[in-house]
Amino acid sequence: MGDSLTHIQALEHWRSALTHADQINTDPATLKLYARSTQPVSTTPGAILYPRSREDVQTICRIANQFKCPLYPIACGKNWGYGDACAPTEGITIVDCSQMNAILEINDTLGYAVIEPGVTQQQLFEAVQAQAPEFWMDATGAGPNASIVGNVLERGFGHTPYGDHVQSSAGMEVVLADGKILETGFHHIKDNRVAHLYPYGVGPMLDGLFSQSNLGIITRLTVWLYPKPEDFSFFYIKVDNEAHLPQLIDALQKLRIQGILPSAVHLGNDLRILSSHSPYPHDVAPPGKAIIDAHRKNMREEQGIGIWNVSGSITGTTAQVRANRKVLHNAIHGLGTLTYVNDQKLALAKKLLRLTRGIKFGKRLTRQVAALEPNYGLLKGIPTDAPLQGCTWGLADAPEHCSDPLEAHAGFMWLSPVVPAQGTDITRLLDLLNPIFHDHGFDMLCSFTLINGRAIISIINMLFDTRVPEQCKAASDCYDAAMQACMDAGYPPYRCSPQGMAKLYSPDDTFWHSTQRIKKALDPNQILAPGRYIPLNGEDA
Amino acid sequence: MGDSLTHIQALEHWRSALTHADQINTDPATLKLYARSTQPVSTTPGAILYPRSREDVQTICRIANQFKCPLYPIACGKNWGYGDACAPTEGITIVDCSQMNAILEINDTLGYAVIEPGVTQQQLFEAVQAQAPEFWMDATGAGPNASIVGNVLERGFGHTPYGDHVQSSAGMEVVLADGKILETGFHHIKDNRVAHLYPYGVGPMLDGLFSQSNLGIITRLTVWLYPKPEDFSFFYIKVDNEAHLPQLIDALQKLRIQGILPSAVHLGNDLRILSSHSPYPHDVAPPGKAIIDAHRKNMREEQGIGIWNVSGSITGTTAQVRANRKVLHNAIHGLGTLTYVNDQKLALAKKLLRLTRGIKFGKRLTRQVAALEPNYGLLKGIPTDAPLQGCTWGLADAPEHCSDPLEAHAGFMWLSPVVPAQGTDITRLLDLLNPIFHDHGFDMLCSFTLINGRAIISIINMLFDTRVPEQCKAASDCYDAAMQACMDAGYPPYRCSPQGMAKLYSPDDTFWHSTQRIKKALDPNQILAPGRYIPLNGEDA
Repeated sequence: MGDSLTHIQALEHWRSALTHADQINTDPATLKLYARSTQPVSTTPGAILYPRSREDVQTICRIANQFKCPLYPIACGKNWGYGDACAPTEGITIVDCSQMNAILEINDTLGYAVIEPGVTQQQLFEAVQAQAPEFWMDATGAGPNASIVGNVLERGFGHTPYGDHVQSSAGMEVVLADGKILETGFHHIKDNRVAHLYPYGVGPMLDGLFSQSNLGIITRLTVWLYPKPEDFSFFYIKVDNEAHLPQLIDALQKLRIQGILPSAVHLGNDLRILSSHSPYPHDVAPPGKAIIDAHRKNMREEQGIGIWNVSGSITGTTAQVRANRKVLHNAIHGLGTLTYVNDQKLALAKKLLRLTRGIKFGKRLTRQVAALEPNYGLLKGIPTDAPLQGCTWGLADAPEHCSDPLEAHAGFMWLSPVVPAQGTDITRLLDLLNPIFHDHGFDMLCSFTLINGRAIISIINMLFDTRVPEQCKAASDCYDAAMQACMDAGYPPYRCSPQGMAKLYSPDDTFWHSTQRIKKALDPNQILAPGRYIPLNGEDA
Repeated sequence: MGDSLTHIQALEHWRSALTHADQINTDPATLKLYARSTQPVSTTPGAILYPRSREDVQTICRIANQFKCPLYPIACGKNWGYGDACAPTEGITIVDCSQMNAILEINDTLGYAVIEPGVTQQQLFEAVQAQAPEFWMDATGAGPNASIVGNVLERGFGHTPYGDHVQSSAGMEVVLADGKILETGFHHIKDNRVAHLYPYGVGPMLDGLFSQSNLGIITRLTVWLYPKPEDFSFFYIKVDNEAHLPQLIDALQKLRIQGILPSAVHLGNDLRILSSHSPYPHDVAPPGKAIIDAHRKNMREEQGIGIWNVSGSITGTTAQVRANRKVLHNAIHGLGTLTYVNDQKLALAKKLLRLTRGIKFGKRLTRQVAALEPNYGLLKGIPTDAPLQGCTWGLADAPEHCSDPLEAHAGFMWLSPVVPAQGTDITRLLDLLNPIFHDHGFDMLCSFTLINGRAIISIINMLFDTRVPEQCKAASDCYDAAMQACMDAGYPPYRCSPQGMAKLYSPDDTFWHSTQRIKKALDPNQILAPGRYIPLNGEDA
């Protein structure tokens, strides 16, 4: 809370400056809600502020700056697995932007939406369906209630051809620590007609400064919408032989770089898939022990999944999709079993399902269709909380359905090393991490996403119960060891939780020193999210 | 030259610090060479330094910083039409990086090249052909001898599907004003294996700061190479009816946003095309007068070109190219005459040409093939100086072939407003600019490039003789009027010459103030290219 006298003074000023009494909350019960985390340790804020407009954000910043009272801005606070709504430091004032949830514009000719930070995936999805039906939104796996802006600023990725959000955003409005408004790209040029269409503007590009950092509060963002393709085909490759993985990765890399597969391609190991669709085998894996291999094999067979499971989509004109399906088929021949699903086939499966309900075969089909449909939708930009279902796996009291991991006390730390899209590197990463997870008693849930034609973002995950201190300790230790191993091996993370950030810094790194100099230039009083990505101390990173 | 005593001291220190005597040049004849410009006004430098290594650049910066002696870094100095090698201010010391021309790595699996600033387009092109024949380099129209790094930093664009160089670069090494080395993306993370493959790194993205700015000297850049497609088809659309232009733009926009046309699409007006391939009609257009419409029509007919001329390419698998050609054909039906050219067809035309040489029909075919081939090649990433040929049009002593506009005394100012990719906006821009050019007595050479699926970069050009003060004055006035008209209409430029920069600023713009604060943080003594894009004075932009 820093100096509590200044904190009290700042609170008084915020109280009188903000229009509504409920825009400020210091109720201990509320603060405790914001202190919940998927991480082993969390921090408790000193107050929550709820701006309703850009002007509110400016007011909040000006007062914070006057009293040198630090702020931690969040969009909707759903930074699952990476620190959630929690600041790196205790007692800070959270600026919760979730009430700034206006969709300011949807353009159905040039395909873009202009949104505030509180706009959720579900909200934009519905608005795009209604107002620009010829376009798709790109959705991430963060769930329907997650903020789009928050995720873009963390450089999360989606699953349509616009899944790289750095390349499909076009400028933002930012409130700086002193309350001034900075607009990036062409947005700051008066009455211009192109800011939403051409992202780079003229002069230096500043957008990059505001992702994974703490240099401003983003109050508006333009995101591009993907023109609905004429045709869409989902594919699933079941891989039964672990030895095929490197060759498969190399084959997929070639298809990604050639544009045959225009969207991110996702590979999940058996545990990653099982965690979403199969009850945890508590009988054979007591707390602190991983599931034994023999049982994993049984579970795979029961669920009809592979050791590795690849999914993705092919989009384009009907002729393109037809042609590219053939190319994929030939490229992965002998490495796994390829299944294509399109709208007609999915509809047929659902119909079949209704007919077979109740019989044993029907149960398995129910699970398969239930498992398929959300991921199928995600590739078309339809938000889903399916990827969150795996987070409660292993909890003694896991809920039937999870839309908020915090309510379920689900602990999970996403370690996300970037790896060359090459089979040899993937093998090396697995050889590196498997023993670490084993030694700490964790199942290793693992996914690889070919984010572009050259690199893979791995998401490596351990699951634990945040109410059990021993599990928290073990998870934290496992994360640290795995993160260190990844850094040492040359696989730094694409995104990081506060716990991991310290490992990113080295003492003589001009990169981090420069970010600190920029921080000092734009936020000399360290008002915004001190310690978030940009290290705190002067030249001592 | 600022304070000449400190300048002399700095020169002494540079002289003793740099290994070779010829790494520093203050010979007036040399300085005069660097003062040549395509612009109506130019500046003369005080000295030229030639670093041969990153360490030289560091040494140069440290000494400059010690004596507060400003530097103007150039790659190869071929920023044609936007200020060339000239600094915005007189007497500055130029750092010419053209001797730092090592290709540090070419990766033929993951498709990238790591290059120094002096590497030219032709040099990398040849290296890629030899070492990574399965990939294409992306080339811009700046000519074989232009630097790739210099062009990327100006955010120039190329003509393969990797033509957006912001999206196809992956990190850089930068020497800051104090001589320290900053590496962007993952490059600063020790022994990492992914910096060339995943451009964003972890933490804030700093790359954008170093394009169109003056915050560092870039000594290394990773550029991605485009995987050679299975098939390639060039297309040319001849448009004879001016009234079809808006509809054509709308049709092309749709094809670009849908990915049917994966590369930039180029539209040139008749004058733009004629300037490259037809002698200037001095008889009907004396200096200070534009070509009359009736004669333009004759010239078009003689050359077989349209009022508007569209060219571009379709790349992909054979099946994709076949399918997309059909889509293009249907989309532009009735708007112009579409011709496809592929390698076979071009070879046939050349063969035919040899057979018909000498007869009248043969002459016209010679011109057409000669005109076609370089542009055809550019779409495959083959550097060419063909786009530079138009720059000498109208000069009384225009050379037969121009590879250096400065030697020919060619004057031209590229005004490059960004416009929505919508027919109505293009019409509005033309209606705005035509009278301005007419009133100033200039032919308006005009091209529109659909740089993405949403925006067009226009390149509007006036030609003059830099030896004729009246023509310089008229060009400068015309540029100012046209630039102001574009800004007022909401079409700011994607790139700018020093003469235009002042029009980008407005007094209360936090964007420019923030760039100034960042400049002060990274280069407090204003050592690097003072006044380049980032305005000079504190908070007074």
